[in-house]
Amino acid sequence: MKPVTLSTAFITALSTLTATTVIATPRQEPITPIAPVRITEPAKVELGKQLFFDPRLSMSGVISCNTCHNLAFGGTDNLKTSVGHKWQAGPVNSPTVFNASYGLAQFWDGRAADLQEQAQGPIQANVEMAMPHNLAIEVIQSIPGYRKQFEAIYGDKNVSLNNLTDAIAEFEETLITPNSRFDQWLLGDNDAISVAERKGYELFKSSGCIACHNGPAVGGTMYQKMGLFGAYKSSSPSQGRFDVTGIEADRYQFKVPTLRNVELTYPYFHDGEAETLGEAVDLMGRLQLGRTFKETEINQIVAFLSTLTGERPDIDLPHLPASGINTHRPEPFK
Amino acid sequence: MKPVTLSTAFITALSTLTATTVIATPRQEPITPIAPVRITEPAKVELGKQLFFDPRLSMSGVISCNTCHNLAFGGTDNLKTSVGHKWQAGPVNSPTVFNASYGLAQFWDGRAADLQEQAQGPIQANVEMAMPHNLAIEVIQSIPGYRKQFEAIYGDKNVSLNNLTDAIAEFEETLITPNSRFDQWLLGDNDAISVAERKGYELFKSSGCIACHNGPAVGGTMYQKMGLFGAYKSSSPSQGRFDVTGIEADRYQFKVPTLRNVELTYPYFHDGEAETLGEAVDLMGRLQLGRTFKETEINQIVAFLSTLTGERPDIDLPHLPASGINTHRPEPFK
Repeated sequence: MKPVTLSTAFITALSTLTATTVIATPRQEPITPIAPVRITEPAKVELGKQLFFDPRLSMSGVISCNTCHNLAFGGTDNLKTSVGHKWQAGPVNSPTVFNASYGLAQFWDGRAADLQEQAQGPIQANVEMAMPHNLAIEVIQSIPGYRKQFEAIYGDKNVSLNNLTDAIAEFEETLITPNSRFDQWLLGDNDAISVAERKGYELFKSSGCIACHNGPAVGGTMYQKMGLFGAYKSSSPSQGRFDVTGIEADRYQFKVPTLRNVELTYPYFHDGEAETLGEAVDLMGRLQLGRTFKETEINQIVAFLSTLTGERPDIDLPHLPASGINTHRPEPFK
Repeated sequence: MKPVTLSTAFITALSTLTATTVIATPRQEPITPIAPVRITEPAKVELGKQLFFDPRLSMSGVISCNTCHNLAFGGTDNLKTSVGHKWQAGPVNSPTVFNASYGLAQFWDGRAADLQEQAQGPIQANVEMAMPHNLAIEVIQSIPGYRKQFEAIYGDKNVSLNNLTDAIAEFEETLITPNSRFDQWLLGDNDAISVAERKGYELFKSSGCIACHNGPAVGGTMYQKMGLFGAYKSSSPSQGRFDVTGIEADRYQFKVPTLRNVELTYPYFHDGEAETLGEAVDLMGRLQLGRTFKETEINQIVAFLSTLTGERPDIDLPHLPASGINTHRPEPFK
């Protein structure tokens, strides 16, 4: 560990602290703490929040971003696969939007470079919101309360897909969950996690989980083949990166998901087939590490994973601006 | 107007007020102001809010109370009729939950006595959330974070339908929208509404709208037949009170809806057939008052109605407790 040089002012400040305050050296680990968010463009974040919660971005007027990435849950819908337009089933499990900004790319197959590009997909996808982009833009543009905000923020009366998704992405970048118990431990609070949880973390490292699940999001930094030690049988039609690149080596390569808040983001895997964390850890051991975890080991790792639950942001439900007299009305049953 | 006797203390207080403060006599009108809510049981309100936003009360895990009574909108979904389980269309338009506690009964046909009784209906209704009550209770009971709250609030480890709907109703009672411009005017602020809006209100009274739309909610105090001056042709199968009582005189009698926030609660009528306020006012004039409003009159009444938009409560999106390991999982596609 690096020695820390303390300034005189800092030492003076220390003397005023109570006995319960933790003073310690941050740990150097392959998992790093999540930094609290700093909002630099509050008006844009507010606009993005409104759009995130607005079901008028869907053809039916029922489905919003929040339907499948529910911020009242762990940023997902806790379903195997989501329910989309006209009750269609999605092909893969909805990943959490919390800490999604840490991903090297977006979607399980990484087909969008960033959150802004990602936001375009579900609006138009027929099995999700089924709203042609031009109609989505027309609807938002026709709502006086939105037009005003777009003009103030982007200096343009005309709503564009670019600005619309930029605002959504700006909001989503605020959806991070700092201050988990594990982060407190990383920052030097030895008592923030229990002995069993600590053992689980050591096993998580020594058994190789950490090779893919690392960094601030405990995942999201790479693609990995689902099924290194034997084929993974899935109900999902997705072939991962292969669907994007057409390269044989990319078949069944999926983005490694974040494990932040993983106790809240059940069910697991791209197909949502694992209902519990225990099942997921067991299968990962066998399929990705060629190792059968004992039950006590699974319990330890699951205990560690529960320390990754951070503070979800407090979200004031937005007051969405009313439709204008000429706003195209939703057509749920057409 | 009644003369007002001012106490010495009040007169002393007056002398300290700034010039912009409005001092006036409250108006005596058939519409009365909405009083701000006083929360006496915050823990119960919080629990009710969680349940209101929790889609696990539906069989699919997708539909919550907030889906059709969207608090980000005007307490409704702004659809002609709602989208329910497996994308079924509801038979009537979802009424707003804002100020619903003022209603003499709940639902368009008044089949529930109060908010608590109302809350039972949609959970189990096949075209809405399609969740048998016993399963809904089992699910909530199986969620540790809920069990704890129910025990603390009701002193009972076992979740009951009665307590579950009591908590939802307690939350819904906080969903009122005070301090509309019209209320400010009622309370004596002459400048809170414009001359045109005032004219609209005078016309609203003189033409007879006020006969049904009165009281603090500007409606909700009685049933009325839809179609007094000629039959109303509707796409809806609902026959109003008749469906509840079987009494011939009750056929097409519907609860008079609140006009609070009516500019946000489009489309209008029990069948959602009127898309705009102008259409609604026009039809009400002809069908209920035997009178054809001129366009300028319609505009005046619509202008008045826009003064009824109050302050929607600020809602912190709840952090819903995670399902337990044995919680029955949603079955959207079964």
